[in-house]
Amino acid sequence: MRSIDRRTFLKASAAAAVVAAPAAATTAQAAPAITTPVTATAAQGVTKTLARYLVNARYEDLPAAVKKEGTRTLLNYVGVAVGGSHHETVERAVAALGPFSGAPQASLLGRRERFDIMTTAFINGASSHIFDYDDTHLKTIIHPAGPVVSAILALAEYRPVSGKEFLNALILGVETECRIGNAVYPNHYDTGWHITGTAGVFGAAAAAGKLLQLSEQQMIWALGLAASQPVGLRESFGSMNKSFNPGRAANNGLFAAVLAAQNYTSSEGMIEARRGWANTISTKQDYLQITEGLGSRYEAALNTYKPFACGIVIHPAIDAAIQLRNQNKLTPQQIDRVELRVHPLVLELTGKKTPQIGLEGKFSVYHSVAVALIDGAAGEKQYSDRAVRDATTIAVRDRVNATVDAAIRPEQVDMTVFTRDGRTLHRFIEHAVGSVEVPMTDAQLEVKFADLVEGILSKPQARRLMDLCWQVEALPAAGAVARAGVAGA
Amino acid sequence: MRSIDRRTFLKASAAAAVVAAPAAATTAQAAPAITTPVTATAAQGVTKTLARYLVNARYEDLPAAVKKEGTRTLLNYVGVAVGGSHHETVERAVAALGPFSGAPQASLLGRRERFDIMTTAFINGASSHIFDYDDTHLKTIIHPAGPVVSAILALAEYRPVSGKEFLNALILGVETECRIGNAVYPNHYDTGWHITGTAGVFGAAAAAGKLLQLSEQQMIWALGLAASQPVGLRESFGSMNKSFNPGRAANNGLFAAVLAAQNYTSSEGMIEARRGWANTISTKQDYLQITEGLGSRYEAALNTYKPFACGIVIHPAIDAAIQLRNQNKLTPQQIDRVELRVHPLVLELTGKKTPQIGLEGKFSVYHSVAVALIDGAAGEKQYSDRAVRDATTIAVRDRVNATVDAAIRPEQVDMTVFTRDGRTLHRFIEHAVGSVEVPMTDAQLEVKFADLVEGILSKPQARRLMDLCWQVEALPAAGAVARAGVAGA
Repeated sequence: MRSIDRRTFLKASAAAAVVAAPAAATTAQAAPAITTPVTATAAQGVTKTLARYLVNARYEDLPAAVKKEGTRTLLNYVGVAVGGSHHETVERAVAALGPFSGAPQASLLGRRERFDIMTTAFINGASSHIFDYDDTHLKTIIHPAGPVVSAILALAEYRPVSGKEFLNALILGVETECRIGNAVYPNHYDTGWHITGTAGVFGAAAAAGKLLQLSEQQMIWALGLAASQPVGLRESFGSMNKSFNPGRAANNGLFAAVLAAQNYTSSEGMIEARRGWANTISTKQDYLQITEGLGSRYEAALNTYKPFACGIVIHPAIDAAIQLRNQNKLTPQQIDRVELRVHPLVLELTGKKTPQIGLEGKFSVYHSVAVALIDGAAGEKQYSDRAVRDATTIAVRDRVNATVDAAIRPEQVDMTVFTRDGRTLHRFIEHAVGSVEVPMTDAQLEVKFADLVEGILSKPQARRLMDLCWQVEALPAAGAVARAGVAGA
Repeated sequence: MRSIDRRTFLKASAAAAVVAAPAAATTAQAAPAITTPVTATAAQGVTKTLARYLVNARYEDLPAAVKKEGTRTLLNYVGVAVGGSHHETVERAVAALGPFSGAPQASLLGRRERFDIMTTAFINGASSHIFDYDDTHLKTIIHPAGPVVSAILALAEYRPVSGKEFLNALILGVETECRIGNAVYPNHYDTGWHITGTAGVFGAAAAAGKLLQLSEQQMIWALGLAASQPVGLRESFGSMNKSFNPGRAANNGLFAAVLAAQNYTSSEGMIEARRGWANTISTKQDYLQITEGLGSRYEAALNTYKPFACGIVIHPAIDAAIQLRNQNKLTPQQIDRVELRVHPLVLELTGKKTPQIGLEGKFSVYHSVAVALIDGAAGEKQYSDRAVRDATTIAVRDRVNATVDAAIRPEQVDMTVFTRDGRTLHRFIEHAVGSVEVPMTDAQLEVKFADLVEGILSKPQARRLMDLCWQVEALPAAGAVARAGVAGA
């Protein structure tokens, strides 16, 4: 459900404002935003051009900011995958698939089972998307890490690779899926496809293929076999089938790469051919988004991370509440009332006044602002069933008022807190934390990570795991990250 | 490539003539042919209606003709799967996937390896489509058995089921994929999807789900997870990716059913919902094709089998040649010349005069008629590289003339053989053998089977295996079919 919010939010938002000037990627050039559909541009040799780039791209050529963003993508991925690892969705998948798994080649993050790399890629990928709290390429709302990192982290345990090779493959995988997503978005997504699963499979195949050192021809085939296996329809949002999609995309991409490595063939132009992927699956095909500027501008540098475990539409309000709380050392008892001026979408999508269960809390701007004022956070914990029934939270929630204001953009909010001692505290948010403009800091990513893995990994283990992610470039074998993410490791 | 022929052929053909009055299914009612796209009819509860039917449908309720056709479907499947089992495509798949396979739960037909059921379903499914010689539901050109039988034959080895349960699941699986195919064909196929892989995954999920005794709710989820995993684009035709598609459809459907059995959820109406499968993947949605007459008319009774290992467009000419040869005991030396009057498509698609390799022979009506006159057959053997270079064959081939005649329908041919001793032998074919109107006889299916498995299974083993297929209803455990299909069993 939250991704629908996000999509609607972005549609309403000024596209240029959302994608321009990535703060975390100053050396990478931002791509121009696509505002109108472009059809069938430069449909020659797209698959081949992409494959050639992937095969030749070296770690040494990556700009520092891109490497840094890749590292942040890894850390955020590991946190959400461990965080989701004991959800009922994962329990059922493990029970279902365990009997068919091959040798214990790779680790389930946050758990103790080890499965073959295909099964592991599926389960870790599903786990990473369960809270809908993973990374987001805002131009396409692809969640890039789920398909890509799930595939190569499993592979890295089976076939040792250095941290540098691993990070290079991760970035190339993210680059691939986001560029292919750009080529068909928004039409493809509007039709009903879950773009994380349909574009994601290319990312997983590209990244796994890179680690398998495929030749250019083999990479063309891997992309072709990936094109044959799109995953996911938006209709499934709200069920376990949603997190199924990045998991199966990871699995399918890995499957494609492993077959291609044995010279299992496909066609030469599966992305752009007349009856190929883009023409079959989308009414928009802007192939220059795939082929232009390869190696000079990086979509992978535009990745973002959700600071709050709810729909993006209420992130500005949560951000404002946390800032006011922290700077004024507000306690719940001090709050007389809160006045919000919000974009119309906020009440349309998250106007639930009296949520009864945790999930409903995610669709309540009132609950979200209350927990942000009380806890200074809006993580999974703040959206538990217990949290929405907490007396203090309810007391604050009932003092939150929201008014629609057409002058407020979706990424903005205007908040005023009136305290019982007569103070008037005001905050206007232009862009919430977690946007491209105001990226989460490394410290904020660590807080999110620690929050997600609490109760699954010990604090020292969580610290070790974060350090391994930050230092991935220095690792002699990247599989160490996966092994350090096992429960009790 | 051959499936393109078939598609074009059927398009040019009068649809009613192709699907009417199924000779092999006199108790089953033929569905009216869809000639114009119908949009969004009866989109209420399609997935649920189908799931309820699947869960409740009993073997005892199947008409005898439907059971018979299901048995023929099984026999033909086993023959083509064994036949393809040592092709380079399968060798590469086995090499690629073996390292990741789980316990040896199921048998690769025609080989000695045993893999987990998921991997086995993929490989047997690919194997069955390699020669493009498998079964065909002519209304949709779905190859029904590859996805369905590959999934449940592997499952039957892991989780023993009676032959009756197995045959019931096979028929329900074929019914499901063909009905869903009918709902979106031809638009969906015209767009570029390989319908065997996109509709096939539903058939595999339905059949596997039936054997797993899913509840109605679980079956709804299995169909939903299947909807999330369509496989295959027509662009890949001509590469190993084509046979990949039914294999992966089998694998995906099994994956869906196994997860649903552990209550891994999906949405309730994934086939028909606004953002569901049919609306996302096709511009035509005729839902009544899925829900009407469930349990009273059977698409599964309309399955057909190719008697010749080439495009359907030249089947009438081959049929005529074999009939004239057999009835007149013709030898190559007796033939002075052959005059054919054919539909324009025949020369457009198969007008190659001097094929140099076996595959080209399949696109030569001249070569095909020559081998049919000489050998009385047109199986894989007649399309080997050696066969197209054979001196006798070339001599006859060069005496075959073909003239386009607009009065000849695609399913017809008019052939006259002039012999050196002055005879004029004439044959007009209204429908070639292998059509719904003139189905292959059981004896012809056995000849095809024996031809396909020659060199892989001994003659006694082939005989035993055919007998097991014919007697599937009487088997206490259907997995016996798979075990009897192992090389050297």
